[in-house]
Amino acid sequence: MSQLSPTDLLTQLQWRYATKQFDASKEIPSNTWDMLEDSLVLTPSSFGLQPWHFFVIRSQDLKEELLPHSWGQVQVTDCSHFVVMAAKTTMTETDIDHFLKRTTALRGGEIDALNPYRDMMVGFTSQMDDAAKLQWAKHQAYIALGQLMTSAAVLGIDACPMEGIIPAEYDRILGLKEKGLTTTVACALGYRAETDKYAAAPKVRFEKSEVLTTL
Amino acid sequence: MSQLSPTDLLTQLQWRYATKQFDASKEIPSNTWDMLEDSLVLTPSSFGLQPWHFFVIRSQDLKEELLPHSWGQVQVTDCSHFVVMAAKTTMTETDIDHFLKRTTALRGGEIDALNPYRDMMVGFTSQMDDAAKLQWAKHQAYIALGQLMTSAAVLGIDACPMEGIIPAEYDRILGLKEKGLTTTVACALGYRAETDKYAAAPKVRFEKSEVLTTL
Repeated sequence: MSQLSPTDLLTQLQWRYATKQFDASKEIPSNTWDMLEDSLVLTPSSFGLQPWHFFVIRSQDLKEELLPHSWGQVQVTDCSHFVVMAAKTTMTETDIDHFLKRTTALRGGEIDALNPYRDMMVGFTSQMDDAAKLQWAKHQAYIALGQLMTSAAVLGIDACPMEGIIPAEYDRILGLKEKGLTTTVACALGYRAETDKYAAAPKVRFEKSEVLTTL
Repeated sequence: MSQLSPTDLLTQLQWRYATKQFDASKEIPSNTWDMLEDSLVLTPSSFGLQPWHFFVIRSQDLKEELLPHSWGQVQVTDCSHFVVMAAKTTMTETDIDHFLKRTTALRGGEIDALNPYRDMMVGFTSQMDDAAKLQWAKHQAYIALGQLMTSAAVLGIDACPMEGIIPAEYDRILGLKEKGLTTTVACALGYRAETDKYAAAPKVRFEKSEVLTTL
């Protein structure tokens, strides 16, 4: 039985919060982290195209370099693992063919049998201009953020999503432009400090009736 | 112990797939669904502003009406619960004050004590034009999609994310424009049909080394 009960899921989602203070002395064990990375890599994406790259920052020097471009949020330097989600700045037929090659490598069969699927993906992506393609890729990166935060929560690992970063500076420091990538969002992971008073604050969500309608 | 082990999390994320055929005769039990809704409502968002509304479509007539605007994907009509994630088309100071009121209602304290937080949110949102605000809100809706899919997976509930929908037609049918909302993405949930051959297909993801770098 590898599932979680609905009650336990809610317990974990209530337990999580956007961690303000990490305990800098606590590190996520490497075998746990490896599996959390695997869960991140398993994130679903549009057509399965995975238009992203994840950077896991462990270097303290690099964290210090990113800090001034992160609204000074010390979660960057105090967390155990700092993940930067980067989106691909384009999506070409070469990318699509690369994905189809991977598909046949894993599933077998002839690549030509995937031509209808190829046509659909090429049709979908070619109708978008560069700005729209980038937005599409960024949307996928946010799915990855959601999957990572929820995965961390059910494992009992703390996380803080971080939109308050300067993507252009992150891109420069990480050398992303030349890789055809751009910084989209980040997430600090580790363990809350005992002194973080936000851990005990009631979670602020609107009433369900205000944000959800059944039709 | 309400947590999941990393191994069990991966088992569930490997078990899930973008369900192509739902068993239309199977319905998610209402108590389970209620808790899955709660997990959706708990989705983290930028500043906690929750710039979204979720529509849970149960009406078969409404599902049928949405189908032609969903690339004909029958998951819309065959699933148990069809969720449409809509983003707020704007974010005003009134919205921010409404959120701060909710914060003090849940956490106590004087609303004026939150002025520095208010200033930060007003500063952040006022520097964005309408298009940027909408993109920001859509990003949050994708976090909700990620949280919903991962939550469903750990509960053993099937899901299919759906970007292949015509937002303008959805907006028209659901009357979203006048509510200050726009359709962003959708997700069909329920139980896979035994005949769905995609359930057994190996999952296609790039090698971790191709999409993840540790620095």
